[in-house]
Amino acid sequence: MCRWLAYSGSPVNLEQLLYKPQNSLVVQSKHSQLGAETTNGDGFGLGWYGTLDTPGIFRSTEPAWNDRNLQELSAHAVSSRVFAHIRASTGSAVQQTNCHPFRHGRWLWMHNGSIARFPVVKRDLTLAVDPALYPEIEGSTDSEVFFYLALTFGLEEDPPAAVARAVGFIEETGRRHGFMFPIQMTVATTDGETTWAFRYSSEGRSRSLFHSTDVSMLRLQYPDNPMLHELSDETRIVVSEPLGDLHGAWHEVPESTCVIVRGGHEELRPFEPSIPQTVA
Amino acid sequence: MCRWLAYSGSPVNLEQLLYKPQNSLVVQSKHSQLGAETTNGDGFGLGWYGTLDTPGIFRSTEPAWNDRNLQELSAHAVSSRVFAHIRASTGSAVQQTNCHPFRHGRWLWMHNGSIARFPVVKRDLTLAVDPALYPEIEGSTDSEVFFYLALTFGLEEDPPAAVARAVGFIEETGRRHGFMFPIQMTVATTDGETTWAFRYSSEGRSRSLFHSTDVSMLRLQYPDNPMLHELSDETRIVVSEPLGDLHGAWHEVPESTCVIVRGGHEELRPFEPSIPQTVA
Amino acid sequence: MCRWLAYSGSPVNLEQLLYKPQNSLVVQSKHSQLGAETTNGDGFGLGWYGTLDTPGIFRSTEPAWNDRNLQELSAHAVSSRVFAHIRASTGSAVQQTNCHPFRHGRWLWMHNGSIARFPVVKRDLTLAVDPALYPEIEGSTDSEVFFYLALTFGLEEDPPAAVARAVGFIEETGRRHGFMFPIQMTVATTDGETTWAFRYSSEGRSRSLFHSTDVSMLRLQYPDNPMLHELSDETRIVVSEPLGDLHGAWHEVPESTCVIVRGGHEELRPFEPSIPQTVA
Amino acid sequence: MCRWLAYSGSPVNLEQLLYKPQNSLVVQSKHSQLGAETTNGDGFGLGWYGTLDTPGIFRSTEPAWNDRNLQELSAHAVSSRVFAHIRASTGSAVQQTNCHPFRHGRWLWMHNGSIARFPVVKRDLTLAVDPALYPEIEGSTDSEVFFYLALTFGLEEDPPAAVARAVGFIEETGRRHGFMFPIQMTVATTDGETTWAFRYSSEGRSRSLFHSTDVSMLRLQYPDNPMLHELSDETRIVVSEPLGDLHGAWHEVPESTCVIVRGGHEELRPFEPSIPQTVA
Repeated sequence: MCRWLAYSGSPVNLEQLLYKPQNSLVVQSKHSQLGAETTNGDGFGLGWYGTLDTPGIFRSTEPAWNDRNLQELSAHAVSSRVFAHIRASTGSAVQQTNCHPFRHGRWLWMHNGSIARFPVVKRDLTLAVDPALYPEIEGSTDSEVFFYLALTFGLEEDPPAAVARAVGFIEETGRRHGFMFPIQMTVATTDGETTWAFRYSSEGRSRSLFHSTDVSMLRLQYPDNPMLHELSDETRIVVSEPLGDLHGAWHEVPESTCVIVRGGHEELRPFEPSIPQTVA
Repeated sequence: MCRWLAYSGSPVNLEQLLYKPQNSLVVQSKHSQLGAETTNGDGFGLGWYGTLDTPGIFRSTEPAWNDRNLQELSAHAVSSRVFAHIRASTGSAVQQTNCHPFRHGRWLWMHNGSIARFPVVKRDLTLAVDPALYPEIEGSTDSEVFFYLALTFGLEEDPPAAVARAVGFIEETGRRHGFMFPIQMTVATTDGETTWAFRYSSEGRSRSLFHSTDVSMLRLQYPDNPMLHELSDETRIVVSEPLGDLHGAWHEVPESTCVIVRGGHEELRPFEPSIPQTVA
Repeated sequence: MCRWLAYSGSPVNLEQLLYKPQNSLVVQSKHSQLGAETTNGDGFGLGWYGTLDTPGIFRSTEPAWNDRNLQELSAHAVSSRVFAHIRASTGSAVQQTNCHPFRHGRWLWMHNGSIARFPVVKRDLTLAVDPALYPEIEGSTDSEVFFYLALTFGLEEDPPAAVARAVGFIEETGRRHGFMFPIQMTVATTDGETTWAFRYSSEGRSRSLFHSTDVSMLRLQYPDNPMLHELSDETRIVVSEPLGDLHGAWHEVPESTCVIVRGGHEELRPFEPSIPQTVA
Repeated sequence: MCRWLAYSGSPVNLEQLLYKPQNSLVVQSKHSQLGAETTNGDGFGLGWYGTLDTPGIFRSTEPAWNDRNLQELSAHAVSSRVFAHIRASTGSAVQQTNCHPFRHGRWLWMHNGSIARFPVVKRDLTLAVDPALYPEIEGSTDSEVFFYLALTFGLEEDPPAAVARAVGFIEETGRRHGFMFPIQMTVATTDGETTWAFRYSSEGRSRSLFHSTDVSMLRLQYPDNPMLHELSDETRIVVSEPLGDLHGAWHEVPESTCVIVRGGHEELRPFEPSIPQTVA
């Protein structure tokens, strides 16, 4: 499927973030260790917050590992909030509008996993999207429709509740079509201030997801690691698989969990789908 | 908007067809003479019939004028039925799935023009597409939704009637949203045996469309033109603008007309939209 | 051929610089007014100086007018020194390594024009490139070989003298092959501190080139134009054709001239080719 | 590095050839079994002979596994002589002009392996290319320079001797620069009638290479395999790694060997580099 990374904290150079770690996201584009696919070469995307109200997005259909523009931009860009995604298509076209993250106003969204037999349920799901949002859908992926469902169900007001409703609706729709396990997902979304990440699947065997530890703890543990001294205490990374093997640096996010990262605080909450009132 | 060409007749080398004429489609990609835009550089597409049941399609986001693969393929390919299209996007993404021609089974479809304020009416139009066809829609253009509406309204059984219903439905939908001129179009579609081409617009000022004359007449008129002797009598070309200035070679298709080309016979019929029963 | 723009001055948002002017470089990519070609759709490139020692470059084979990544990056990037170029290929492949600007260390280089019958003289010219620099040549354009000749002849020490030697060598080589007018050029190069721009052609009929006026003068003249009040006094733009029709804003660079822009000072010097000692 | 396939024999549908085998070249683009890299996703190329004097080439920077145009063309194209190549770049740019096969007149050339420390020897090697051929070099790979060296040393007259001279010259040049193992290669070249394939490396540990067995023998052995009955007796495939695990279908080409395939006859000859007279 895919791999992704959500960074927040002290302003970081994107080359340091995306290329330098031993098992960096760019490395994972060719050789993922924990992914459903080892190769995530069907395009990539980057979302970052700068001085404007809305984040920038840079998306390409090339594999991340050989894209020179990604390397140039990463070398020169600094941001304190970055979403990055590498794609392994499960059939939908390799085109920029199918690359993550997706954007709506200040919001970004990226997804690893899939909605089961999406062509069969696509129409039902798309019809449930708020007609005012509908024209914004540009691509053909399940992930983008999922985003617009979450927006329809109130993502901008209460993200965990909105994602729960979107997942509940997707599961209900899939089961109505006779699919046992309608959704498989790790998702990250942000409004530029807080990041919400979700690990869930209908079958209870979700794709891998990890979050980084308190940096100040790691610094005590590894006093000689320079990178740890450049990052501020509130820096946090949520990622599909660890970026290296520093012992103690990464915690696996449990099944059916929502991780909320705001400044240097993270909170893990149980996540379970709910049936949206407006649709049920 | 765009420019297109529909060829049927004796097997023709695609380089002869697409590159050699004085005002060839490849020339038009940079310098169209009669188009709404002089530049049609937002991708191109080719559909051709060979020995398989379904036609092949080759589509690219590059401008036609600098695409080397198009040149290579054209040099080597021969076909007796070719659709070719160069695109000038009016806003939707430049991606292969937005390039014409679109394909469904044995059918091809290409369009020059636009559905007025498509983002506003897109949802209403898309909902009217047969749910069994809906999952095939891959891109984000008005032209592709138009194709699937025509298929929904019976394109495979009675093309002129189905297009009339699709246009009627688009006009009705647009007018319900308050748009005076909901559609502007020249369209070509084929099942591999017959080509149907349409020139129509709600305002009665449609994009240009021409069809070629009987080749045997031209041969008498220009006994020394070698190209005319290579083409069989039943060869016909329908095209957005003439490929050259050979006097007598091209007839303008009148407003609100459907041209039907089957073998060496062409028929011009008045075209007017109708309101589809199933929707009205 | 091509069109380009060289900006230096107060930090400018790239969207303001590349998209907003009435006859912006992005507009020129589709509709150049003074270019040898109206369409410059064979790729584009951007070079900008940030906090690193070397400038960043972003180059793409898409037309500038429809490239969404260019638009995203421009919206978010700010720089006080920018080179931008839109390409109209005269035959060499449309690929990133043929897009301008070219980079060597801190230096950028971009070119509009051509070396006459480049395939014929390419070997002679390339052999004269310093063997230590030779492996850096990645593309197949005359413009890149021209850059490496200038570097070979001392660009980093004395740019006007080095360009004069490179042009002298190109002319000598071309004439030895029997070409009357071996070079046609406007060129810009910078080390991140100073910009040198050249207008020259063997036939004395060079491509257009303009430089902007002292902004403080324009402010007095147009007290109500807000853009003029955002730019610092030392802002200067050298460009293939004026970005708008503000009376008094643009001066044509004379034939056979080198423009040197350093801070808010510009100097115009006569430019003439010289024969490099090391080769002659 | 890369993987390639050279087919000659009865006219074959390219989809059958490139997609259908269990370990097809398209499968190898994502999961090569014997390659130096498992992923060969840095572009691909196709060369095929049709009715024209020169073969067609179709080359793309996309990974083969997700390129829809490759799939469309393969479905419709039939050829009795096909070269196909998937690329894993070792550093040079991912661009069409760096994709194999390379073409000169009726000749095609493709290569897996590398010239050791190519940037260091590139100038010396390129200077040895016949000045009349030099302008045809469009890309920046070692493989293309190798091809033009072979052409310079007489490829069109005596391919094994010319390749021996080119390899001898590359080894001599590399050793002069102090490299112990100057070349690693499997190469295929054809004039449209005969295919010559080479397996060699300076260190005697060459990349894998296989050739197919006499089809008539296989038919006796596997009377129920339909594919074997569609292929004519003279069909032969030379390939970087077997396309499947049919016992007895594939022979490994020994180290330092040239395979010559002409019609249904294959000949294996020892291959060793020689020092070209004109250069030594």
